[in-house]
Amino acid sequence: MSYIDLKYEPSKDDLICSFRIEPSRGLNIKKVAEAVAAESSVGTWTEVKTMKPRIRNMAAKVFEIKGNYVKIAYPSELFELGNMPEILSSIAGNIFGMKAVKKLRLEDVEWPKKIKNSFKGPKFGIHGIRKILGVKKRPLVGTIIKPKIGLNEKEHAKVAYEAWVGGCDIVKDDENLTSQNFNRFEKRLKETLKMRDKAEKETGEKKVYMPNVTAETKEMLRRAKLVEEMGGRYMMVDIITTGWAGLQTLRNEDLNLVIHAHRAGHGAFTRGLHGISMLVVADIARLIGVDQLHIGTVIGKMEGKKEEILRIEAEIEKSFIKEGGHYLEEDWGRIKPVFAVCSGGLHPGLVQRLMKIMGNNIIIQAGGGIHGHPKGTRVGATAMRQAVDATLKGISLKEYSKTHKELRDALKKWGYKK
Amino acid sequence: MSYIDLKYEPSKDDLICSFRIEPSRGLNIKKVAEAVAAESSVGTWTEVKTMKPRIRNMAAKVFEIKGNYVKIAYPSELFELGNMPEILSSIAGNIFGMKAVKKLRLEDVEWPKKIKNSFKGPKFGIHGIRKILGVKKRPLVGTIIKPKIGLNEKEHAKVAYEAWVGGCDIVKDDENLTSQNFNRFEKRLKETLKMRDKAEKETGEKKVYMPNVTAETKEMLRRAKLVEEMGGRYMMVDIITTGWAGLQTLRNEDLNLVIHAHRAGHGAFTRGLHGISMLVVADIARLIGVDQLHIGTVIGKMEGKKEEILRIEAEIEKSFIKEGGHYLEEDWGRIKPVFAVCSGGLHPGLVQRLMKIMGNNIIIQAGGGIHGHPKGTRVGATAMRQAVDATLKGISLKEYSKTHKELRDALKKWGYKK
Repeated sequence: MSYIDLKYEPSKDDLICSFRIEPSRGLNIKKVAEAVAAESSVGTWTEVKTMKPRIRNMAAKVFEIKGNYVKIAYPSELFELGNMPEILSSIAGNIFGMKAVKKLRLEDVEWPKKIKNSFKGPKFGIHGIRKILGVKKRPLVGTIIKPKIGLNEKEHAKVAYEAWVGGCDIVKDDENLTSQNFNRFEKRLKETLKMRDKAEKETGEKKVYMPNVTAETKEMLRRAKLVEEMGGRYMMVDIITTGWAGLQTLRNEDLNLVIHAHRAGHGAFTRGLHGISMLVVADIARLIGVDQLHIGTVIGKMEGKKEEILRIEAEIEKSFIKEGGHYLEEDWGRIKPVFAVCSGGLHPGLVQRLMKIMGNNIIIQAGGGIHGHPKGTRVGATAMRQAVDATLKGISLKEYSKTHKELRDALKKWGYKK
Repeated sequence: MSYIDLKYEPSKDDLICSFRIEPSRGLNIKKVAEAVAAESSVGTWTEVKTMKPRIRNMAAKVFEIKGNYVKIAYPSELFELGNMPEILSSIAGNIFGMKAVKKLRLEDVEWPKKIKNSFKGPKFGIHGIRKILGVKKRPLVGTIIKPKIGLNEKEHAKVAYEAWVGGCDIVKDDENLTSQNFNRFEKRLKETLKMRDKAEKETGEKKVYMPNVTAETKEMLRRAKLVEEMGGRYMMVDIITTGWAGLQTLRNEDLNLVIHAHRAGHGAFTRGLHGISMLVVADIARLIGVDQLHIGTVIGKMEGKKEEILRIEAEIEKSFIKEGGHYLEEDWGRIKPVFAVCSGGLHPGLVQRLMKIMGNNIIIQAGGGIHGHPKGTRVGATAMRQAVDATLKGISLKEYSKTHKELRDALKKWGYKK
């Protein structure tokens, strides 16, 4: 039986994958594409006696091959609705281990409506978050408490307070802080929310704390519910190290909390020509239903090419994505847009450039770029807000810094980009 | 502050990581190793004003650099006990996305006793499984129902029955079969366990069915409990697409079920010079507590070098692992050994070679290599058992096949290796 049909026109119910394939030595792309389609749907390496004619019709079909790029259509009946691990065990499973492929990258997925509607999508999305914060147009400004870990609960809350009153909208835990002996989750939550209330009162602005609930699923749910009970509005979770089953469970609980998704660990499989693109990770996260997602900065300490990051931003923010090249169409329908988080090595001197590249619908997060300010956290946060304000007003950072000494000190320390 | 101390001698409470690092252009290994140690513990890209002296003592330390191989020691207080996602967000998180590294691979981890004892480890392990099956020394023989997906519940159970009476000990679902419309979990479970009972009666051997419970966590737990209630002894789960939080939750439920771990998707990050080694995946799986783990075949359809696979087999089977090269010591203490599963492109003609390489403490699984037999599933299973028997008796497959026609037909179709 064959898994190739270059005349096949995908139906509306098909799930479509775009792969980049480098065949192993001596094999041609057609043969390898077929092996990928077989292994990821109903086939294996040899014909089996237990095959039935009706099952042949469920086979995935390679319907386009252009250079190294291959498109494969999967009948949606192959998949269990609402079960992300199952879907990935098909389209992003064994195929990465096959000897026949030298390099294989899952570049993009187009989800049929039936499958899309079996997931919740974001509860709040960009619009809901802007409503909670009362910030209509500007980028949100956030910080990660630093040092990454080591502060105790009261010290943590104190640093958060400084960041808020200095000008941050958002304060988050770092991705590896959960509930260690030196800083227990419940106590940190209590202390930090207390400081949030104080900062809100003093500044007249809405302030957000994003406690990291990452843990084994039941403990994670317990922590999330605690956040809700204690009056938090947000939680954050490390979606890659937690995994898709845990993330789905967290979202399906339908708590009244914005979900901030940290992507620590994604680089292990998104970065090279073998693995899964960050675009697909973003797709999955939007489908399951995170409200905010780290997607990179183009210009900070983390790797990520401009074109790719902008493509990811469009994928999570827009309601319709046009097909082009090896990228697939996506009609997000009722699934809300996700707020893009830019984080990793940012400081005030990079803000103008960042907003020029990525627009205003972003969350600008800086850890070192705020707490490393020569005058400390509060002044660092002020400098960051000033950089945003300058950009919104169309004034250069250099110019604005003449009348804003907080920004001036930051630019002096870290430099700036136009 | 510095994250390098080449004179440092790790304490018993340190968690140690062995990394392979290729620095990005223009950077030297020492500088990059230091950046990795900072980002994965208490540091970031710039000094922060919120740093405290006592936190400096919690910093990770690069204590060995040999060529591209680097060892880093982490004080165990950095981590939350029993929280695998948190630990990985540190040692296998952001660092994979850093611009400073061109390639970074987490090669091995040595877990301090304190952290090791915060995880359950396998409930049954090799010894417990051999006891359930009443098989003392020989490799276990298993099959995966094929086609991968498409059979309905009764057809599935019928194929399982054929495999068992033909000679298989174990029958498992494929990694992408969970609960689709054409084959619902509960009905499949019921039908297949009925056939298991029948096969046990007829053969006088213990027979095992491994239903795939992979799903969002709560649904996964519901399915697992159903297996226990209905008299199953095993369950299988796709550990990579499910994720570590879900796997921990499944193990912590402490059901009376052997956990079979399928690794679909691991190749996306274990295969190249950037990512996490399969050895580390195996380590994590043993720690959390799976009883059986796919580790490769050396000779089948899946990629995996002999030396690496043998190293993985030792890591999950032995109670003490010696340090050597960039591999780290491991004293598994009370954590039970895990049964190695060899699966992917196997057929009777490869069994002798496989057992020569990997020994008798393995589970030999074949899908296509059983259901693709010219005479079908039952005869295919018999041929597979004959190949195992021949090898145990020290008779060559060629010789044995003269008096065993099932094996003869298999060798004729697929050939054989000495």
